[in-house]
Parts: sequence; structure tokens; C-alpha cells
Amino acid sequence: MSSNRLIYLPLGGAGEIGMNAYVYGYGPEGKERLILVDLGVTFPNMDTTPGVDLIFPDVTWLEENAERLEAIFITHAHEDHVGGIGHLWNRLKVPVYARTFTANHARRKMEEHGAPEDEVITAAAYPEIIKAGPFKVSFLPLAHSIPESSGLVIDTPDGRIVHTGDFKLDETPVVGDAFDPDLWAEVAKPGVKVLVCDSTNVFSRHPGRSETSVAPEIKALVTGAKGMVVATTFASNIARLQTLAEAGIASGRSVCLLGRAMKRMITAGVETGVLTNFPSTITAEEAQQVPRENLMLIVTGSQGERRAASAGLSRGKYLGLSMKEGDLFLFSSKTIPGNERGVINIMNAYSEMGVDVVDDSTGHYHVSGHANGPDLQRAHEIFAPQMIIPMHGEHRHLREHVRLAENGGRAAVLAVNGTMVNLSGNKPKVAEYIETGRTYLDGSVQISALDGIIRDRIRMALNGHVVATVIIDEEDEPLGGAWIELMGLPKAGRSKAPLTDVLEEDLSQILNRMDDKTLRDDDKLEEAIRREIRRSANDEIGRKPEVTVVVSRLVG
Amino acid sequence: MSSNRLIYLPLGGAGEIGMNAYVYGYGPEGKERLILVDLGVTFPNMDTTPGVDLIFPDVTWLEENAERLEAIFITHAHEDHVGGIGHLWNRLKVPVYARTFTANHARRKMEEHGAPEDEVITAAAYPEIIKAGPFKVSFLPLAHSIPESSGLVIDTPDGRIVHTGDFKLDETPVVGDAFDPDLWAEVAKPGVKVLVCDSTNVFSRHPGRSETSVAPEIKALVTGAKGMVVATTFASNIARLQTLAEAGIASGRSVCLLGRAMKRMITAGVETGVLTNFPSTITAEEAQQVPRENLMLIVTGSQGERRAASAGLSRGKYLGLSMKEGDLFLFSSKTIPGNERGVINIMNAYSEMGVDVVDDSTGHYHVSGHANGPDLQRAHEIFAPQMIIPMHGEHRHLREHVRLAENGGRAAVLAVNGTMVNLSGNKPKVAEYIETGRTYLDGSVQISALDGIIRDRIRMALNGHVVATVIIDEEDEPLGGAWIELMGLPKAGRSKAPLTDVLEEDLSQILNRMDDKTLRDDDKLEEAIRREIRRSANDEIGRKPEVTVVVSRLVG
Repeated sequence: MSSNRLIYLPLGGAGEIGMNAYVYGYGPEGKERLILVDLGVTFPNMDTTPGVDLIFPDVTWLEENAERLEAIFITHAHEDHVGGIGHLWNRLKVPVYARTFTANHARRKMEEHGAPEDEVITAAAYPEIIKAGPFKVSFLPLAHSIPESSGLVIDTPDGRIVHTGDFKLDETPVVGDAFDPDLWAEVAKPGVKVLVCDSTNVFSRHPGRSETSVAPEIKALVTGAKGMVVATTFASNIARLQTLAEAGIASGRSVCLLGRAMKRMITAGVETGVLTNFPSTITAEEAQQVPRENLMLIVTGSQGERRAASAGLSRGKYLGLSMKEGDLFLFSSKTIPGNERGVINIMNAYSEMGVDVVDDSTGHYHVSGHANGPDLQRAHEIFAPQMIIPMHGEHRHLREHVRLAENGGRAAVLAVNGTMVNLSGNKPKVAEYIETGRTYLDGSVQISALDGIIRDRIRMALNGHVVATVIIDEEDEPLGGAWIELMGLPKAGRSKAPLTDVLEEDLSQILNRMDDKTLRDDDKLEEAIRREIRRSANDEIGRKPEVTVVVSRLVG
Repeated sequence: MSSNRLIYLPLGGAGEIGMNAYVYGYGPEGKERLILVDLGVTFPNMDTTPGVDLIFPDVTWLEENAERLEAIFITHAHEDHVGGIGHLWNRLKVPVYARTFTANHARRKMEEHGAPEDEVITAAAYPEIIKAGPFKVSFLPLAHSIPESSGLVIDTPDGRIVHTGDFKLDETPVVGDAFDPDLWAEVAKPGVKVLVCDSTNVFSRHPGRSETSVAPEIKALVTGAKGMVVATTFASNIARLQTLAEAGIASGRSVCLLGRAMKRMITAGVETGVLTNFPSTITAEEAQQVPRENLMLIVTGSQGERRAASAGLSRGKYLGLSMKEGDLFLFSSKTIPGNERGVINIMNAYSEMGVDVVDDSTGHYHVSGHANGPDLQRAHEIFAPQMIIPMHGEHRHLREHVRLAENGGRAAVLAVNGTMVNLSGNKPKVAEYIETGRTYLDGSVQISALDGIIRDRIRMALNGHVVATVIIDEEDEPLGGAWIELMGLPKAGRSKAPLTDVLEEDLSQILNRMDDKTLRDDDKLEEAIRREIRRSANDEIGRKPEVTVVVSRLVG
């Protein structure tokens, strides 16, 4: 027995959907050589991350161990797998491997953030092997909703790991590689030690449907429409974009793509040769000349994003185009939990225009890109691994997937972000817990989720903000009274007098009564003022605001 | 022909789900005598109404015409129909009519907000009539999910109006009145001029299921559970509370209600005699002594509300009770759009405890209290009105309901909040538009949605807040530099220097260069400072914050 060990350590994606980042290591304890699989992002929301632009996994641990890191492998070009590479590469500085289409995206992201493009290396698919320290890694083509999606076959001195990435068992996926059971059986043949497996759809109890199955429904809908048709889906769901565009063409419509992300995806697909038969499209300018019954727009904004094309059209003209009574809008997508209100607002805006809105509530116009419960079971059976580690899912998904694995008689472990698992024996064992978290891109600055900045924003939003300024003169006496500024608070409350007046009055009174010791000590003075404002405001408006106290001391 | 007219004017609930408030009027134009049906609330969210406590319809129009208002009628005791009565009664000051159980709630709300309880008058059900000016109003018992839910039969000199309130066609509703087709036929017999009809479930294509249909499924689930069972539903869904409690008793468990709102509902039901066979329950203290396999908790918080019992249990101990591995948590409810993240967070917290969570994704453990599309069609047919006005729904629901009505060959009109409809002729005609909106309860103050307070809070949450203080001396010269305070902003950006230092430095420079005219004019000075801070911050941290400028002028 060597003293080497094989480890797995999720830094993102295990305990959440999005922000994927998984570390594997092999070597003596604490000196394992490492590889990173995926480096994705997740998206902020008003409830917990107001004003934040983007969310990354915290890669501090990886940065501290950067000299042990051999390479980064990106499974596919979705933002939750590749979106962090440009922002974070400079903290890691190792080669990035991906297949052609994904590499194209990764290079653009590197370029956008001042990281060297040529560190992204295009990899061929299985059986081609990339050596990275003790690991031999191979990109296993599989079906998802974007071209060249891949699992990874990771051969280690301790045995074979299959890391699925995102996948579904689709033998007719419209674009990208099909599910190939024979290929999987070939990979499984030498024996798989660990299957690290996508969990997002584990609660879906029926086998997943093929992307091909939505084409006839969408075609019938688009053909039957009397006016203009506008359809939205994820910009990165290239399979669906193809299905939608084909439905447009088949019904005698010109197809126009609206939205930067979507056009970029299609351009990249054509440039890299993975998208060979995407219908030709027209520009927004050309579309203005086409009779609406002969026009189909495919637009960004399936999640109700305020800046996307779907929201733009719901507010009126967008790039010279607008919707009107008798047009049809199709959400060929599912709404991600948390985005419902935004999507519903758009639906109602279209309703006000007299536009008919069709969504996926009937199940006809969307299928998921992920494997459902029974599909996961089938994947377990094909790879027949010694142990299974569920990844990419919230806690409840990982837990259910562990249960599924154990019901199939296999060892499994629930490992959320920061859980280092030792894979060396016959069963996965939790080795230790690493401190992990989230990094926020806030404007142009990376901040930690823990440093209180966002907490302060949330408090201002919930409680309003009072700024109190007092001037203390050379003799440590208050000069004049206090100035109060309100932000996000009612102008007046119980007494009907202006709230600023009430607070200034109350504050002046306590300043006049204040002892010298407090007046000389900034901290004590601020605390006394803050307490008085909160008390007085609560009395007046029934709310204790956030308070910033500015003490300006005149120096003699 | 008289010159009198019959009008309908929704002030809330038409163009949204929640906040119901509908005005009817009869008389000469502009002098119609008025009644108000329902006075509900809706709930705030972080996206659009951070910090707000409760949302009411704006009753300004009604207040201005209060001398024409005869009475208020409350259809049932749900918050979106009765929740505003205590807060707003003092602006309207007319008698409030409701059936026993609803009146009990209304009185409590009046009392809580200093309005006179005895203005709430208990009304008997149809065929008993309440006269209110030119109107003869009668409470029509129907099925919903709370006892004594009622439609209103409103007889006017211009014909009969049926206002449905919330309803479903449930002949076995567990609690409350059953759907009674014969009674409806009797009401319809003299001829119905206008049906004003609930629209929330118009997109549901199958006939609704009876409340009774979930009982066996819930019973099987609860009986099969090994550990403690905790179930949640809306506190006001008394039918479901009864179903859940009966399932607990049937499986040999003691039942304990947790959550103030829920206990209050049950108490009111028992006190008013509408709830005669609710199983006996135990207190939280008593529950601590019961073996968990013999215990069922029914708790508030089906929407993931942070302060409710379900969220409390997900964080650990709640009133001495806690969940653990092997327990079962049932969401016997649907998640209202916008609440998904909160609910999912609780599910994951339970998953971490090893608690099995069951929700309504299978359709087994919840049915809606509202009429589905085919049920609405049946209601149209029974009442056979001359015209239909869809109410209680978002724009898309109202629009679809108009379509349904027109497909059935009846005149209909889409009237959102503020649309006054003339019902006097053979078809509904829009007469005019009244300015309507929302009133926010913010702490103890009622503010308007339009006055910018909440907009400022949202801006602080998205952009952070900078406070700049400058002191201008007796000669209109800056005294010292500027003080900067940050709230919700990164401590440092591009230059790595503290952001406060960078902003103070930049500000001092422009203050030194500033001409006398600007220094003498507060508005100009503030604007110049604000602009410089936004420019400098954008340079440093890629973000333009909200800025409050405090200019303190020393007076000689």
C-alpha cells in the first residue's frame, strides 16, 4: 500500500445549482497534485445579493495551493461551468483544457478579463488523453443542450473516475453529441471506481424526453400562429435555438435573433464548425421590413431579466421591433426558482398588449437538458461504479441522489462544498472540511460574501438610512445642533411634523445634556447619537433605521 | 329611462392576485350611492417593496367620496379580502357587514387598529337582505377553503349582480358551505344582469378537485411516516387544517398547532361555532413529552416566511420542539410565485437535518380553493348572466377569463383597477379611469407607492450609499477637506487604497478649485460634489453609488 490518496473536493455546485467547481487530487496527504473541473458562476438576486453583478466560488484554498494545481478542465460552455474562468484565472495560472466550442468561449472570457487566451488549450475527445500530473483525463462526448458537452474520464493510479458534467440520456439531441450507450459501456469496461454525477433532476420521476420530442409541438404552434411569433429560451440552449429556428423556417417565416448572448452563441457554433445547419437569419433592421405573419424572433430573456430582449419588447419598441395584438410569445424554457415574478411581469405586460403568451405549463414546449431520476439510475448501472458521489445540486438533490445510489446497492456519500472526500478505499470517506464560500463581483471589485458589505445594503433597503452630522468645536462642545439627512424613510410620522425636525430636536436635547467624557470620545458619542435616533424614529415612524453618524471635529 | 346608472369600479384585485377591493354604485352620474366589496391586503417583497410591512389599495377616491359610501361588505376572512379593514376604516367610516366568522375577524382587526368594533355587523346568509342605499345585498354561501365564504347577490334598480368572491365548485369541502347548484339556480332564476367572477385559476384546464380528495393521500402519508410529522399549509386554509389534523388523529398521533395565525383561526372557528368537530390539540409544551412517532405538528410558514414556525424549525429548536433524521415535513400547499427561494431554502435546511420533505409536486397533497377554467364555465352557465366581468386576477387571468366568457357567447370586459365600468346597458362600457394605486404600511406610517421612499431604498441596496460632509465657513470657504462615510460599498478598489481616502482626496481637490458662485449655492455645491463622487467611485470600484451630501455652513 502506498501512502498516496485520491481526493475529491467540491468548491462550488455541491449544495446549490450553479457555480460548479470540483477539485480532484492524488498524492501524499496534503501534497496531492490537483486538477480543477469547471469554474462556473451563479447569479445574484435582490433578496440576498442586491447590487452584486456575478457570484463565483471562493477559490482561496486553491490559490493557496496553486503550486499543486496541474490544470483546469471545462466540461461545457454554460456559464455555471465556464463563467468564472476569465475572472479567476489570474489567481490560479494553470492551463485550461476544453473541447473546441467550449475553448472558444473560454478564450473570449480570458480575453475580456485580461487573462492570456493561449492558456486555453483545445482538447480532442475520448479516447485522446491529456496528462495532468498523476491524472490522465479524457473528454467523453455526451448529450446536454449545448454542443460538445462532455463528461470526463479521469484515470488515476487508484482507478478510474467518471465525472459526468451536465448530461441527459438523449440519443437524438438535435445538436451536439448523442448519448452513446456503447461508448459508455466501453468506458465502463475496465471498471469505474467512482462516478461523480449530475443531480439537478433527481426528483423527476419519469425518464427524460429527447430534445427532438418538442420539435413537432413547437412547429405546430408556430405554424398555427396568425401574427408575429417571438420565442425565448436560454441563450446557451443551442439545441432549442435550432429547434425554434427550424420551426420558424418550416412555417415560412424569416428568423431574427435578438440579444447579444444568443447571437454570440450561434456565431461561436458556426465558427467552430459544431453548428453546420443553423438556418440563415436576418438582422433586426431587415426584420422591420418583413410582414409580421412571416416573421419569427428568437430572443434572450427567458428568465424575465430586465435588460434582455424579451423584457425590452414587453416595454415597447426594441431595436425598432414591437409586438402587438394577435402576436404570439412562447416561453420555450422553464423558470428557475426565484425568477417567477420577473417572468410573470413580462407575461402580464404582453397580455396588456393583446399578445398571446404560451409557456411550458403544459409540458409541450420545453424539455430539460439534465438526466431525470430513472436516467440517473441507468447511468449508475452502465458505469457500475464502486462508489457514487452526487454533485451539482442543492442539498436535497444530493441527498436524494445518495438514496438512489444506495438503493442500487452502491456506496455513496453526500459531500457539499468544502467536504474533502477520500476515495482511496472501497467506500468514500470524509477526510476534512475546507473553508469555502462565495466571492461576489461587485462593480469591478471582488468582495467576499462574508465581509458585511451586502448585509449593510440589505439593512438599508429594509430599514432606511439616517445620516446625522454633528460638529464638535475646539473645546469639545457641540457647535450648533445636529443635521439629519433621511434616505428611504417617510417624511413624517405620528406627530405629523417633519421627521428630520423631530430627530434634530431630540438629538439637540441629548447633545446639550451630554457629559464631557462622551463628547470627547468619538465611539461613545456616535453610539449615543445612534441610540437616540433609533429610539426617536421608532417612536415617530415605528421603525429603527440604519444610522450613520458623522462627527466633524474642528481642530483649533 | 332614468338618468341613473349602475357602475363597477375595482380599486384592488383586478390586475393582481390579492388586495381585493371593488366598488359598486347606482345613481345619477357622479352622484352614485356606493358600496365597497372587500378591503384586502397584499404582501411586500424584497424586489419591489423592501422593508414595507403590508400593502393596501389606495382608497383616496373612496375617501373623497365617503359621503356617498353606504357600507362595506366582506365576502370571507382571508387577508386579501379583509386585511385592510382595520387600517383603513377610519378613512371611510361606514358600517361593515360580514357573516359571523368573518365578522369575528373583522372586529379583531378593527380593535387592533383603533377602529370601532361595533361598526362590524353580523349578517345572516341568503335569502336575508341587507339594504344599503339603492342596493339590496345578500350573502350567498359558497365553497372555498375557509368557513362562511360567500358570494354576494346584489339587487339594484338596474338588475341583479352576482359577485362571486373567491369560490370553487366543491360539493364536499370538508369545512364551510358546500357548492349548492340548486341554490345557485334559484339565485339565477329571476335573471342575472352581471356576474363579477373570480379569475385566479382560469388557466387550469381541468375541473377542480374537491378538498375531500386529498384526505386519503394525506392520511396514507402520515400513517406511513416513522418519525414525527410536521405539516404546513396556509394558516387560513381551515379546510386543510381539519384534513391534516384528522390524518394525525387517525394515525394515532397527538396534534399540536404551532404559529399564532393558525391558532387564532382555529380558535375563531370554534368560538363562532363554524368549526364543530376540529380534533382536540395539545400545546407545544405537552408535545415535548409525546414520543415523536405519536406526534404531528401543524405549523405556519407554507410560503417560507422567515418568522413563521416552519422556518423556525428549519433553524433548530422552536418552542422547545425540533426535527431530526427520520421525521417527515409536508408542504400541503402551493408556493405563491415569488416565494420559491424561501421555500427551497427551508427544504434544504430540512434535508441537512435528514428530514424527508414532501411537497405538492405530485399533486397529491394539495388542491386549490379556486374554480378552474371548466368550473368558471359552469358558473357562467348556471348564472347565465347578460354580462361577465372577470375580477381577482392578474391582467393575463382577466384577459383569459374575458375570452372564456366571450367564447360562451356573453358580453365581457377587461377592467383593471381604476376602470369604472357602466353596467346600465346591454353591454359593459368603460366610463372613465380613476387614479388608483397602492398604499404601503411602512413601520407605523402609511405612505404612497409613488412618493419615492421605496425607490430610494432600492437604489441604496443596488448601488450602496456614500455620505459626503463638507463644512463651509463664514467666508464661504471649505473648512478642512471633506468627510466620506460608506455604507454597503467595498472598502477598496482598483488602486487598493481605501475608497474613503480616494474619494476624500478627489473631493478636496475639486473643492479647492471650486468657484465662489458654486460654493455659495447649496444646490450647485451638492450637485458638483455628487458628480465628482460618482465619477471617482466609478473609476475606482466600477459602480456609481447613491450620494447624500451634507453641507454644514458655519454662521458667523
